[in-house]
Amino acid sequence: MHCPDRPGIIAILTQFINANGGNIIYLDQYVDTVNSIFYMRVEWDLTDFIIPTDKIADYFNTLYALPYNVNFSLYVNNRPQRMAIFVSKMSHCIYDILARKASGEWDVEIPLIISNHPDLERIGQQFNIPYHYIPVTPDTKPEATAQQLKLLSDSKIDFIVLARYMQIIPQEMIDRYKHRIINIHHSFLPAFIGAKPYHAAYQRGVKLIGATSHYVTPELDAGPIIEQDITRITHRDTINDLVRKGRDLEKIVLSRAIQKHIERKILTINNKTIVFS
Amino acid sequence: MHCPDRPGIIAILTQFINANGGNIIYLDQYVDTVNSIFYMRVEWDLTDFIIPTDKIADYFNTLYALPYNVNFSLYVNNRPQRMAIFVSKMSHCIYDILARKASGEWDVEIPLIISNHPDLERIGQQFNIPYHYIPVTPDTKPEATAQQLKLLSDSKIDFIVLARYMQIIPQEMIDRYKHRIINIHHSFLPAFIGAKPYHAAYQRGVKLIGATSHYVTPELDAGPIIEQDITRITHRDTINDLVRKGRDLEKIVLSRAIQKHIERKILTINNKTIVFS
Amino acid sequence: MHCPDRPGIIAILTQFINANGGNIIYLDQYVDTVNSIFYMRVEWDLTDFIIPTDKIADYFNTLYALPYNVNFSLYVNNRPQRMAIFVSKMSHCIYDILARKASGEWDVEIPLIISNHPDLERIGQQFNIPYHYIPVTPDTKPEATAQQLKLLSDSKIDFIVLARYMQIIPQEMIDRYKHRIINIHHSFLPAFIGAKPYHAAYQRGVKLIGATSHYVTPELDAGPIIEQDITRITHRDTINDLVRKGRDLEKIVLSRAIQKHIERKILTINNKTIVFS
Amino acid sequence: MHCPDRPGIIAILTQFINANGGNIIYLDQYVDTVNSIFYMRVEWDLTDFIIPTDKIADYFNTLYALPYNVNFSLYVNNRPQRMAIFVSKMSHCIYDILARKASGEWDVEIPLIISNHPDLERIGQQFNIPYHYIPVTPDTKPEATAQQLKLLSDSKIDFIVLARYMQIIPQEMIDRYKHRIINIHHSFLPAFIGAKPYHAAYQRGVKLIGATSHYVTPELDAGPIIEQDITRITHRDTINDLVRKGRDLEKIVLSRAIQKHIERKILTINNKTIVFS
Repeated sequence: MHCPDRPGIIAILTQFINANGGNIIYLDQYVDTVNSIFYMRVEWDLTDFIIPTDKIADYFNTLYALPYNVNFSLYVNNRPQRMAIFVSKMSHCIYDILARKASGEWDVEIPLIISNHPDLERIGQQFNIPYHYIPVTPDTKPEATAQQLKLLSDSKIDFIVLARYMQIIPQEMIDRYKHRIINIHHSFLPAFIGAKPYHAAYQRGVKLIGATSHYVTPELDAGPIIEQDITRITHRDTINDLVRKGRDLEKIVLSRAIQKHIERKILTINNKTIVFS
Repeated sequence: MHCPDRPGIIAILTQFINANGGNIIYLDQYVDTVNSIFYMRVEWDLTDFIIPTDKIADYFNTLYALPYNVNFSLYVNNRPQRMAIFVSKMSHCIYDILARKASGEWDVEIPLIISNHPDLERIGQQFNIPYHYIPVTPDTKPEATAQQLKLLSDSKIDFIVLARYMQIIPQEMIDRYKHRIINIHHSFLPAFIGAKPYHAAYQRGVKLIGATSHYVTPELDAGPIIEQDITRITHRDTINDLVRKGRDLEKIVLSRAIQKHIERKILTINNKTIVFS
Repeated sequence: MHCPDRPGIIAILTQFINANGGNIIYLDQYVDTVNSIFYMRVEWDLTDFIIPTDKIADYFNTLYALPYNVNFSLYVNNRPQRMAIFVSKMSHCIYDILARKASGEWDVEIPLIISNHPDLERIGQQFNIPYHYIPVTPDTKPEATAQQLKLLSDSKIDFIVLARYMQIIPQEMIDRYKHRIINIHHSFLPAFIGAKPYHAAYQRGVKLIGATSHYVTPELDAGPIIEQDITRITHRDTINDLVRKGRDLEKIVLSRAIQKHIERKILTINNKTIVFS
Repeated sequence: MHCPDRPGIIAILTQFINANGGNIIYLDQYVDTVNSIFYMRVEWDLTDFIIPTDKIADYFNTLYALPYNVNFSLYVNNRPQRMAIFVSKMSHCIYDILARKASGEWDVEIPLIISNHPDLERIGQQFNIPYHYIPVTPDTKPEATAQQLKLLSDSKIDFIVLARYMQIIPQEMIDRYKHRIINIHHSFLPAFIGAKPYHAAYQRGVKLIGATSHYVTPELDAGPIIEQDITRITHRDTINDLVRKGRDLEKIVLSRAIQKHIERKILTINNKTIVFS
C-alpha cells in the first residue's frame, strides 16, 4: 500500500490488523521523503482474523483506503501462483527456473512453456511441462499472439517470465499482464538497449558487463527495473566470452527478480520499483 | 530500542511520539522471528514535542520501557559527536577519515589523534589536529594507557576509531568505551584472525581478500562485525599486492562503519550488530 | 609447465613448438618473482606439427624438460573429459552442471551420478544418466568406497565433482584422483571449516557469506582453492535465508571451477592453484 | 608494443632483450585472435644491457619494428612522472590522490593543481602544492586555456587527472595530451552520459550506480574506458545518497586508473584500452 505520508500513519494502518485479531508476521515500510509518500508491505496471519477473507478488501477500502487516500493491493496466499515461461533457443534461464521449481525452492505452478522455436522441447519433456511451439513471423504475429493469449488465459496464468525470449511482446499482452511480465535484458540498462548488447559492450570497451531484469512496458527495455548485477571483464574477453559470462549473470538476476515477484515484494510506481526486504 | 515482540508493538511504541506532537522523520524496524524480539530505530523532530527534552528518557521509561520490557537508548542530536583517532604508521585510513571530515561529509569533531609512533605527525599538522605521540612498550603500557584515557576524557571523546592502530587495546579502555571503539581488521573475519592476515591469505591461496570493521571487545578480532567487504585477487598477486589492494578495502570499510556509528544506526546485541538502513 | 626462471625462458620453450610446425593458439605465462619460478600454459594446433602426437611428451622431456628442469603436463585434446558427479540430497549444483552439459556449454561426458541417498534419482532419469545409489554408513564405508571406485574405473572417469556430497572422501579415492576431485564448500574458506558453515556464519554475525571451490585433499576443507565468491547479507537474514542465498553462490562458484578444470587451466603447486586466463 | 600476430612472435621480440644482456622482469602478452594482433608489454633491467639507453628505440625500430610491423612505445623509468590535477569544488578525489602520493604509494610528482574555483585552495596548502585558480567562463575560456596550457608546459607535466573537474576540456589540450588526460565520470558509461548522471540514475530507477574512468577524447564521455566499478543502491536511496555512495566509487575507480597509467600498463587502441596485469 502507499498513501500520502502523515504522522502516525503506521499506527493507523496497522490498527486495522491488530484490532481485528490479525497477527502481523512481516512489515516493511519506507517513506519517500522527497514526495512525502508512505509505502508499506504487511503480511498477517488470518487464523484468528475476525473479518471474512472475501470481505477484507471491502472493509479496508471503506475504513482506511478512502479516508487516508491509500492505494493498496491485497493478496490472499492460499494457492501457488501460476507462471508461464516464454523461451527461444537459449536454455540457461529456463533450466535455472525449472531447477528451482523442481527442488521446491519456489512454490509456483508452471503449466506451460511457450516458444517461437522448437529447439527446447526436450526441456518441457524433462520436466513434464507442456511445450507450445508457436512460430512468430511478421505475418503470423497477430495470430500467434491470439494463440498465446488463449493459452495464457486457459491456464489461468498469473505472470509471465521471458527467459531469453527474443520477440517483442505485443501491446495487448502487455496490457493484460501489466507489471506481470518479467524480462531479462543482457546489459546493464539503460546502457545497450535493444539487440546485441554484448556486441555493443565489446565495441565500447566496457570493463563490466551487466544484466537487468525488468517488467515489460510498451517502450523497449524501458520498463521498471527489478534487479541488476554485473561481472568484471577484461580486454582478453571476446564477444563469445561475454556471452558465456553473461549467461550466469542473466539467469541469477532473472531468478532473483522472479523470487521477489512470487513473494509479492515488488511495488511498481512511476516506472520504478520498490523492492521490499 | 528492542523488546519482546507482540501484536501492535509498532503502533504502541510510536504512539509515544505521535500523541505528544513529535513528527517521525525516520523509522526502521525489524523482527527477529527466531527469538521473537522486536527492534526499532526511530528519529523524530522535537520542535513541537510537548515533553521537555531532558525528561523524554524518564517519561518513555515509565510509560513504555517498563510496561513493555523495552531496552532503549535515546540520543538528542544537538551537537556533533567527538571522535578520537588512533594510528600507528599507515596513513590510508586516517587520510580517508580526515578528508571526509574536511569536506563536510561527516558532522563530527576530531579533537585529537593518538599514536604509538611519531611518523604521522605531519597529518595532524595538515589538518590542525593535536597529535599525541605516546609510545607503547610492554613496560610502559599501563602508563601509556593512563595517559591515553586522560586525553580521551579531557577531550570528552564519544567514540574511538582505530585507523590501523597496531596495539592491543587494554581492558580498561574497552570497558569505558564499550561498543564505542571501532577497529578495522585487514581480513575477512573470522578468517585470518591476529597478526599478518595478508601473509596468511597468501599462504592459504585464497582468491578474495577482505576487510572487516568491528567493535573492539576483549577477545581479539572477535567483536561485533559492523561492515565487511572483499576484493578479488589472483595467483599473480604478491603479498605486497595484497597489502596495496587491501588498503583501499580497509579505508572504505572502516569509513562505512564510522558513518553508521555517527548516524547511530548500529544496535549491538549478543555480539552481533543490527545495522539500520 | 613450470621451471626455474631464467632469461629467455619463454623463447626457449616456445621454440619447441615454433620450430616443429606447431601454431600457438594460446599462451599465458606468469613468473613467481618471489621464488623465481616460471609458469606457462600453452596450447598449439597439431595439424602441421611434425612430431607424432604419441611422441611429443618424450621429445619435450628429452629436449627441454631435462635440460631446463621443467615440470610439465601434456594433454591432447582429442576427446571430451569424463566427469562423475557425487550428490547427496541437494539438487541446485547438479542441475546447474547438467544444464550446462545439456546446452553444449561444456564439452564433457557424464557417464554416472553417484549418491548416498536415493532422493535425486529423478534427475538422473531426466538427463538419461545412470544414477547409482550407494548408501554410506560407518559400517559399510569400505565396501561403498570399493563399489564407487569400481564404477569410476569402469567408466574411465577423468575427474569427480562433489556437487554438495555430504560425505568425507576416503583416502584411497583422493590418492587415485589427486587434484581431480572438485568440492564446493559453502563458506568463504578458511572461515567456517567443517559442518554447518551457514549456522556458524549466522552465529558470528558476518555481513558477507561465501562459497569456495577447491580440490579435495586429505585434510578437511584445506585443499587448493580454485574459486571463491561472496554475497552480502544483513541482520535480517535468517539461517534459512543464508542457505537460500548461498545456493546461488555455490552453484556458480562450483561451475566456474569445473569450467577451468575442463579447460585444463589450473596448475596446482604447494597447495595453491595458478588459474590461467 | 603491438603487431600482426605470427608464429614465434614472442620469441622473436624478446630476443632483442635476451640477446643483448637485458633481464626481463615483467612480461604480459595477449593475442587478439579476432583481428590477429599480438600485444605485449615487457619490462627489463638495463644494468647489463649493451645498447646505450638513448639508442634503444632506434635499434629496436630498425631491427624489429620495421621488419615485423611493430607499433611500440618505449619508456625509460628513470624519473617519477609529473601529474597535474584539475579540480572544481569537490574534494574527495583529490584528497584520495594526494593521500596516496603523501604515503609513498605512488612515485609521482604533482607540481600543480588547477581549478576553476577557489574553494579547495586549502588543500593545496595542506600538501604544499601550488594551487592555480583560473576561472572559466564562456568569454574567458580561450584565455583560461592558454593560461592552463602554459602552466602545464612550464611544469613539464606528463599527464593530467581531472579529479571531478566540471568543465569541458578544450580540443587543443586534448590534442597535446592525447591519452594522457584521465577523467572520472560518475556513471557506469555508456549509461548516463553528460551532466547530472546521479539524477538520471535516480529517475531511471536503476539498482546499481557506477563510476567510469576514461581517457578524454573530443567526444564527451566517449573516450577509452580504463576502469569501472559499481555499488548497489535501493529504492530507499535519495539522490543525495547516490551522490554520497558515488563519491567512494569515484575516488577508488579514478585512483585505480591513475595507478595503471603511472605503471604504464595501459595500451590504447581503437578507442579501447588493454590494461596489462
